[in-house]
Amino acid sequence: MGIIVQKFGGTSVGSIERIQNAARRVIKEADQGNQVVVVVSAMGKTTDDLVSLASQLSAQPSKREMDMLLSTGEQVTIALLSMALQAEGKNAVSLTGWQAGIETEDRPSNARILNIDTSRIVGLLDKENIVIVAGFQGMVEKTREITTLGRGGSDTTAVALAAALGADRCDIYTDVTGVFTTDPRVVASARKIPSISYDEMLEMANLGAGVLHPRAVEFAKNFQVKLEVRSSLAEERGTLVEEEATMEQNLMVRGLAFEGNITKITVANLPNGIETLSSLFSTLADNGINVDIIIQNVVNESTTNISFSIDSSVLGETQDVLAACQQELGFESIITEGGLAKVSIVGSGMISNPGVAAKMFKGLSQKGIMIKMVSTSEIKVSTVVSQADMVKAVETLHDVFELDVRQPAHQL
Amino acid sequence: MGIIVQKFGGTSVGSIERIQNAARRVIKEADQGNQVVVVVSAMGKTTDDLVSLASQLSAQPSKREMDMLLSTGEQVTIALLSMALQAEGKNAVSLTGWQAGIETEDRPSNARILNIDTSRIVGLLDKENIVIVAGFQGMVEKTREITTLGRGGSDTTAVALAAALGADRCDIYTDVTGVFTTDPRVVASARKIPSISYDEMLEMANLGAGVLHPRAVEFAKNFQVKLEVRSSLAEERGTLVEEEATMEQNLMVRGLAFEGNITKITVANLPNGIETLSSLFSTLADNGINVDIIIQNVVNESTTNISFSIDSSVLGETQDVLAACQQELGFESIITEGGLAKVSIVGSGMISNPGVAAKMFKGLSQKGIMIKMVSTSEIKVSTVVSQADMVKAVETLHDVFELDVRQPAHQL
Repeated sequence: MGIIVQKFGGTSVGSIERIQNAARRVIKEADQGNQVVVVVSAMGKTTDDLVSLASQLSAQPSKREMDMLLSTGEQVTIALLSMALQAEGKNAVSLTGWQAGIETEDRPSNARILNIDTSRIVGLLDKENIVIVAGFQGMVEKTREITTLGRGGSDTTAVALAAALGADRCDIYTDVTGVFTTDPRVVASARKIPSISYDEMLEMANLGAGVLHPRAVEFAKNFQVKLEVRSSLAEERGTLVEEEATMEQNLMVRGLAFEGNITKITVANLPNGIETLSSLFSTLADNGINVDIIIQNVVNESTTNISFSIDSSVLGETQDVLAACQQELGFESIITEGGLAKVSIVGSGMISNPGVAAKMFKGLSQKGIMIKMVSTSEIKVSTVVSQADMVKAVETLHDVFELDVRQPAHQL
Repeated sequence: MGIIVQKFGGTSVGSIERIQNAARRVIKEADQGNQVVVVVSAMGKTTDDLVSLASQLSAQPSKREMDMLLSTGEQVTIALLSMALQAEGKNAVSLTGWQAGIETEDRPSNARILNIDTSRIVGLLDKENIVIVAGFQGMVEKTREITTLGRGGSDTTAVALAAALGADRCDIYTDVTGVFTTDPRVVASARKIPSISYDEMLEMANLGAGVLHPRAVEFAKNFQVKLEVRSSLAEERGTLVEEEATMEQNLMVRGLAFEGNITKITVANLPNGIETLSSLFSTLADNGINVDIIIQNVVNESTTNISFSIDSSVLGETQDVLAACQQELGFESIITEGGLAKVSIVGSGMISNPGVAAKMFKGLSQKGIMIKMVSTSEIKVSTVVSQADMVKAVETLHDVFELDVRQPAHQL
């Protein structure tokens, strides 16, 4: 008996049948006496279709007009889900982002939520309505401009609403049954993780696990919103994402994340100096190039080598940017190595287990896998290896850390 | 040099190419130094597609949610047209109905415009933007509910905006080149009318000419908005709709309207009484049955016969309603005659030409066409004939009133 926020992604509302299925999930929570707020994405490929229309008109359509265009996708879904609930005899009211009181900053296509005025939602809930809110969108209150929240926006809407409403739980319905120890399409023995901490989830999400957007996880962590990632089709518990303290066990390694298509770039013999690093990476950031792992290696008193990894798709752009600033920064040359992959272990338990990284390196070396780069955080160790070794590395580490062994199930 | 409002209907923005074509029409007006406000409908069959989705979820979806659903159609078009204009180097900003300041009454699916706060549009025009407004929609300011304006809503939006902005002209772009003396698919010699008065247009529109919604014409008449109905594809002048005083000639008969699928119902031997007519037609109106021509025929001192015409599609419903109130109203029986059609002549000149109706009846009788009902207004004479005679009647009257003879062209 409390407030539950449910979020259904694009595939979970991708057809009339799926919308009716989602309606049944909503009704199930409502019939248990909960007040239910539902956040939905655009149906299936709707957003792609709209983007395609825009691209036929303009190579670079204005972000403001893209927001105007794309925000219709969620608006269609909220109306249809509301109708599906009404057809089942429930009171339901749909609200666009701006009607739901979601105020954002004035940054088209990638706005952050500044505030949620929940008065309208609360009023509707108190009159026994199920409230359906369009995800991914909000409004600049002062100018009445429609904005969208960028990638993962509907997850963020759901978590932000859960925080603002003081919801008991935020359920993220998706097309997988939860968060897995690693990608089950790659490692057959991958298992669903019953519960995971926000920080672990963040590391998994950032590394490509992909079921939950990092922004939403950060939001959930900051406001202590308890999440559950679960399937909209299968009737089973998913993965709880919550504060560690409430979890039964601090596992040394909770899961493995990996991604391919990585290139390592080494900027050789860069003159040493206080400004060196900041100049280099500011220049890259200003050009919109996303750098992942960074390693600095002092060669001698006057020069340094800096290596970093990027997604291979931005290699050409990165080379152009570096070439343009070579004279200014004064480095000697650029060395690139493509065909790489990143494999990471994630687990909040590794903070108190100093041997975890060593165990990882040993496991990989025993299989003859060469490690090209290493990066560590308190709850993560990432290694860069040859892409040809990626799957073998993931399988090896899944065994080494016994991730196929059942973890204790969470109690709700 | 002034403010021009342009409205493009669904077929005129039905594809990317059509939207680009509409953009060229907009640019042409803007390049002549005009401030341009464009009102658009949903693309082609978008509205039908959305209605079909809704009907799969509910036999009778709530009007409030239908408004939420359908209003997305125009929002897609405004964004795309704005992008098309920007791609041609123009400053353009799209606005939803609520962003454009269109305030309506709180009547879902059929709201009337109460007020337009033009401040945002005027501000954008003054900064040299072309402003694109979503037709067919508005908002209840107090509750922030999205509403739609019902059939012909985009025409109404355009005319209302033209009135509120004091526009010099409101151009209605459509898939025909103007208003014709009668349907050119039926009468080969039908000609485009260069100019027509509001009242004549109202009679033509109500009788099924269909290029311009009656509500919009009424609005234009009330606020003296000069309209031009013209083709979005052909480069030619259309039909001006304006106050008679400005027109060169008061034609006796401006055009012919006709519609088939009509049933005549006679309520026989209804007791005479002050309340009789109002009871009967209030009962029909309360049940949503639209009655067209009404003829009363007093039979004797105590009883009367009343005949009226309806669209044949509501015959069953009408019979049910009448059967339910037979005892209360005390009439003897109901006689129905289907398979009828209405053929009307329209022209503001007939007020001062008493022989027009007689000329019409004579023309029809000479061709052996039996007239079943007659109804007249100051600028219209309608006859009900057998549907089998409809086309022959229209052709005959087109000849009788010499509508194939060129009328003087208007000067702009």
